[in-house]
Amino acid sequence: MDKIKIFAPATIANVGPGYDIFGLALENIGDTIEMQWTDKKGIHIHPIDGFPDLPTTAEENIAGIVAIEMLKQQKIKRGLDIRIHKNVMPGSGLGSSGSSAAGAAFALNELLGKPFSQTELIQFAMLGEKATSGKAHADNVAASILGGFTIIKGYEPLQVFNIPFPENLHIAIVHPQIEVKTSDSKKVLKKELGLDAVIKQCGNVAGLVAGMMGNDFTLIGASMNDLIAEPIRSFLIPGYKEAKKLALENGAIGCSISGSGPSIFAFTEGKIKAEEIALLFANFYNNLGIANKVYCSGINGNGCEVL
Amino acid sequence: MDKIKIFAPATIANVGPGYDIFGLALENIGDTIEMQWTDKKGIHIHPIDGFPDLPTTAEENIAGIVAIEMLKQQKIKRGLDIRIHKNVMPGSGLGSSGSSAAGAAFALNELLGKPFSQTELIQFAMLGEKATSGKAHADNVAASILGGFTIIKGYEPLQVFNIPFPENLHIAIVHPQIEVKTSDSKKVLKKELGLDAVIKQCGNVAGLVAGMMGNDFTLIGASMNDLIAEPIRSFLIPGYKEAKKLALENGAIGCSISGSGPSIFAFTEGKIKAEEIALLFANFYNNLGIANKVYCSGINGNGCEVL
Repeated sequence: MDKIKIFAPATIANVGPGYDIFGLALENIGDTIEMQWTDKKGIHIHPIDGFPDLPTTAEENIAGIVAIEMLKQQKIKRGLDIRIHKNVMPGSGLGSSGSSAAGAAFALNELLGKPFSQTELIQFAMLGEKATSGKAHADNVAASILGGFTIIKGYEPLQVFNIPFPENLHIAIVHPQIEVKTSDSKKVLKKELGLDAVIKQCGNVAGLVAGMMGNDFTLIGASMNDLIAEPIRSFLIPGYKEAKKLALENGAIGCSISGSGPSIFAFTEGKIKAEEIALLFANFYNNLGIANKVYCSGINGNGCEVL
Repeated sequence: MDKIKIFAPATIANVGPGYDIFGLALENIGDTIEMQWTDKKGIHIHPIDGFPDLPTTAEENIAGIVAIEMLKQQKIKRGLDIRIHKNVMPGSGLGSSGSSAAGAAFALNELLGKPFSQTELIQFAMLGEKATSGKAHADNVAASILGGFTIIKGYEPLQVFNIPFPENLHIAIVHPQIEVKTSDSKKVLKKELGLDAVIKQCGNVAGLVAGMMGNDFTLIGASMNDLIAEPIRSFLIPGYKEAKKLALENGAIGCSISGSGPSIFAFTEGKIKAEEIALLFANFYNNLGIANKVYCSGINGNGCEVL
């Protein structure tokens, strides 16, 4: 294969109580990546439309960092041309860097004739995450590569699995366009959690997994509480508490921060309710005078795919 | 109804990573309770066969404490006669006090014509737990009342639910007869957990729920790690590490401490393997010169039941 075009979905990490362990893939939101072998040596990354600040040097670009390591491991020295189209802003909390990292790993694996397993692709993509956020977290990249609702059971060794989810579960998302960098956002978190809080967090984790697998919307809703990131990060997002209240009062099942924010997502039963909540989110942030973008999506069961 | 005889199963709490949130009910191990109205005022509790140290004063006996509160709430002043038969020792870590508390609540509810919901019965039974261990934990009593594999999602308010479990999941248990009191055993636990440990614990909780619901024995096994109680309580149980190693090396799926110990349980695929592991446990503790009792059981899907 000489060239390929793929889609790598954006993702919601943490998903309420699943700090660093839960992730889910979104539909129609994410990166489209075109990759081809060239005669020109090295990795050539085109400037990214609409995002002139994103680096194009391979050693600094997320996709480039991933590709360098994969080519090194395969001992391949061919020239590679990468073109990335993003429709989700970096710093949104929707796994923008994760999409590029996951998409690069997936696309290059296809070009190479699929020498790597999905777990290996996740590990390569994690290198991209490490370069961006300082921590090689897997929740975004695993969800982007595998699709669906993914769980990182552990990191040493990396153990990732998918669970079934209700077909009719939809998501309303608002991205209030203020910047919260993942690396900053991780710094504000407490380094320890009291035992009572750990027990509550574990109860919510168990509830969310059981709710997803058992199509139990009530249980999903009751489990969407987070005692690690939300109590602290919510203060970094203007209007978060009011937006969450608005969503819950208008029929959303649950509402939380997507990844490290500032995007906020709400689970709904059905697509129509998601569209209704998305509109409420947009109006709310418009009234606050904060530029925002809203999305509606189901859970993307496919993950990265060839276009 | 004037009299009733019920069975209240013994239980395994925590079940690996689910500290204070997971519980499961056992088959054929537990309390048999006979209860009847009498003309004699007050609550009369017969001495418990084989356990002369257990109090028979209503205000001090677990079943009595539960019954007092239930009768008070129903404004009933009839005399009550309670006879408890135990086949699991107090202080075993198999929810001995929980069986008496759960059984008393269940039996009295039947005698009263079922005025209370299952959640209310759990709450009454928790009063018995509080009297014994100082903490009104629900993991044993909920599993004993509801049966199956139960999850305490939260305590404020009490939210309990059951998840499906693999039919072929069996349990080998050994009770090395040394005493570890729950109240002492809770004291030795750390009051805080580092964030990395919390993430691992949550990953294991998610894995165990998904493994149970998805009939995935490999995932169940990989998730049977506990970072809260096991690292500390294991030191209170002589031979724990060796017994666990023995079980795992001989085909057990996972192995951990039952409740606050000293009983140790191992999950197996199939009944024959459970019997094999139980025998290994018995031989191991016999060789150490520690008196012990072994049990084999599936998960009891019925919970408390009228005999």
